[in-house]
Amino acid sequence: MKHLIHTLNKAFDNRVRLGVMAVLMANESVSFNELKEALDLTDGNLASHVAALEKAGYVTVSKQFIGKKPNTTYAASVEGKSAFQEHLSTLEKLLRG
Amino acid sequence: MKHLIHTLNKAFDNRVRLGVMAVLMANESVSFNELKEALDLTDGNLASHVAALEKAGYVTVSKQFIGKKPNTTYAASVEGKSAFQEHLSTLEKLLRG
Repeated sequence: MKHLIHTLNKAFDNRVRLGVMAVLMANESVSFNELKEALDLTDGNLASHVAALEKAGYVTVSKQFIGKKPNTTYAASVEGKSAFQEHLSTLEKLLRG
Repeated sequence: MKHLIHTLNKAFDNRVRLGVMAVLMANESVSFNELKEALDLTDGNLASHVAALEKAGYVTVSKQFIGKKPNTTYAASVEGKSAFQEHLSTLEKLLRG
């Protein structure tokens, strides 16, 4: 049986990805700027990681107008929530040794 | 106050590094091959990550001969153990949300 580290999900194998998913698990939907401020990130850093999570199907993106201003919000998808839960329990097993 | 993800230790921000430290925290000293087998890694992959942990001062390397054969063993340093404990508690705080 392969070592536990191989069961960890590569999509979450980075502090920014962990941070984004932790925020999205705790909130129904979050705007780009709220995510950026909550995690103290640059636009570019956050955008690249959120795009990767979206590509993996773990985050959904909705674009709407608030008044005349475009607004982008993110939410963890059903697959994202279950994959992240699995990642967390593997991490806990690994770290308990 | 900066978000928790910035308190995570970059030296451990990767599944292989987590795996190496988890094994070294549970064992006094471990040979390269034991680490490689325990974590199902290639020589190159393990060597690069162990070298980075050594450079960070978190892992100590001892080289000795067993009979005529050279043997390299690794151990978590005192700084490595305390830095890894801190990383784990930050990870737990982050994941508890």
